[in-house]
Amino acid sequence: MAVSPDRETIGYIYAPIQERLARVEGRLRDMANVNFPFLSDLLSHVYCSSGKRMRPAITLLASGFHSHDELKSEIMATAIELLHIATLIHDDTVDESDFRRGRTTISSMYGKDIAVLVGDYIFASSATLVCDIGHIGVIRKFSETIMDLSNGELRERISTYDPEQSLDDYYTRIYSKTASLFAVSGESAATISGAPDEHVAALREYSYELGMAFQIVDDILDFEGDPEEFGKPVGSDLAHGIMTLPTFIALERSNGSNPVKSFFEDRHNDKLLAEAVEMIRQPEIMSEAYSEASRRCDIAHQALKSIPRSPSRDSLELLLDYVVRRRW
Amino acid sequence: MAVSPDRETIGYIYAPIQERLARVEGRLRDMANVNFPFLSDLLSHVYCSSGKRMRPAITLLASGFHSHDELKSEIMATAIELLHIATLIHDDTVDESDFRRGRTTISSMYGKDIAVLVGDYIFASSATLVCDIGHIGVIRKFSETIMDLSNGELRERISTYDPEQSLDDYYTRIYSKTASLFAVSGESAATISGAPDEHVAALREYSYELGMAFQIVDDILDFEGDPEEFGKPVGSDLAHGIMTLPTFIALERSNGSNPVKSFFEDRHNDKLLAEAVEMIRQPEIMSEAYSEASRRCDIAHQALKSIPRSPSRDSLELLLDYVVRRRW
Repeated sequence: MAVSPDRETIGYIYAPIQERLARVEGRLRDMANVNFPFLSDLLSHVYCSSGKRMRPAITLLASGFHSHDELKSEIMATAIELLHIATLIHDDTVDESDFRRGRTTISSMYGKDIAVLVGDYIFASSATLVCDIGHIGVIRKFSETIMDLSNGELRERISTYDPEQSLDDYYTRIYSKTASLFAVSGESAATISGAPDEHVAALREYSYELGMAFQIVDDILDFEGDPEEFGKPVGSDLAHGIMTLPTFIALERSNGSNPVKSFFEDRHNDKLLAEAVEMIRQPEIMSEAYSEASRRCDIAHQALKSIPRSPSRDSLELLLDYVVRRRW
Repeated sequence: MAVSPDRETIGYIYAPIQERLARVEGRLRDMANVNFPFLSDLLSHVYCSSGKRMRPAITLLASGFHSHDELKSEIMATAIELLHIATLIHDDTVDESDFRRGRTTISSMYGKDIAVLVGDYIFASSATLVCDIGHIGVIRKFSETIMDLSNGELRERISTYDPEQSLDDYYTRIYSKTASLFAVSGESAATISGAPDEHVAALREYSYELGMAFQIVDDILDFEGDPEEFGKPVGSDLAHGIMTLPTFIALERSNGSNPVKSFFEDRHNDKLLAEAVEMIRQPEIMSEAYSEASRRCDIAHQALKSIPRSPSRDSLELLLDYVVRRRW
């Protein structure tokens, strides 16, 4: 296995945007101050977290190729991270998760009901903030992305424990629930910075493939990662009835046996779950899944070639390596 | 008590906008057709319901004073109703309601999780649709309204069973959770139709006061209405720990006894609940609450005077009477 990048590596990758990212953090802190103490406390809890801030980082880096009013791309980066936070809060109510980014989730502290309403508030805050950019096309794309995100979660939710779902279904789902937000992070930044169409398309393609690769690696780590670093038990997706790329690869390679289907038909059976997980987390299967993630990163790398070399472009390239080599 | 208006009355009030409202219904039906059968079925279930469509009606009527591209106000009316539907779906997850508008709720059919995600999808659909109007100020106001709506529900949720809440808290809450949406229904319509500032302000004031009166009457009917017509048992708000205008009036008039506080401290005690309800639903208290609703309708009526008389204005005036005299 490749050497896991230092946690400091992400800091190195973000070097060209360090000041701007700090201003985005400041904006998030400010936005937690609302005239409603209960809500203010909750917003501080979720806005000031230990997340990697990858999506706003993509926005800031992707806006760095053309000189423009930097305030606008910082607003966009803030809105993008707010949207991401809102989806995590709603996802935690669906998953009944107790911990996220090392902190207790709102739904475990106050119940699903409060979490739903706080999530709604943050969704709306993000949409309101995007209006400050003053570009209707960008606003529209942002709202469409919120539709994609909820669509993706819905698709995932209703396909649980369905052994008949297809690889195409999987790719549709991970586009909707993950890559769509990465894609708008890059594309909107390019648009806001006044980039020519060719660069907007390139940055969209880069961010989309990066997002797909990111989710694929997440899905691999669910089988292969260290539960303590990764924050979830091994095979957690499968335990929840979710079929991901490693599972599809394993079933394609299997000699006809389908322990996944057996487990889905008897979903409290830990022995069947363990058998299915064991079948899936073989080195050759993990390797094939990593190949797919790498293939997408190659496409993303290729897309960047139409943009002149710069520290921002270097960082976007390093992000591709980081996404594949990370262990969390 | 005033004679309850016929269910047909609302049809008469909507006469100037009948065709336009039919087109809005058509848009809602079309928007249920998405490339995801499970979601499509759910959307049809909630879009094609027996709601009064009061908010879109306000939008259509309020846009009728100035000639403009009617497509835009119809889009706005559709978005407004979608937003209202999304809030109802999320509210039903919080309230654990089984029925809404004579149909089973999504949360009782498929669980809270699905209801949260479908609600998210509809919120996002409404925000995307508003972008088609192409007016950033209107888009922003719409997103801010979504913030108000979730803020209001949060305030209500965390103040349940708190006997120390104030009448000011109540008015802040009902502005956020109800009147804000009425206000944007009228104000945005005026803006979209190119009305001069004076008319925009007048229609905003009208819609805001109408919305406040609407909620106050809802809160009165919760004590006084026929459970079968109204759809909820008598004193349902109080049973859920929610203090509304009739409760505040009753406590102000009481001779020091506070059965509401006693009930809040022993909230499974049906006898205490019944005592509190009995104290509140006295004719003089109901009457004082209605007076507040009527006072606001008078302000709304006055606001309309700056707008030239027309069938649309007549209908907006009739809506004021309807809101106060209705029994559901």
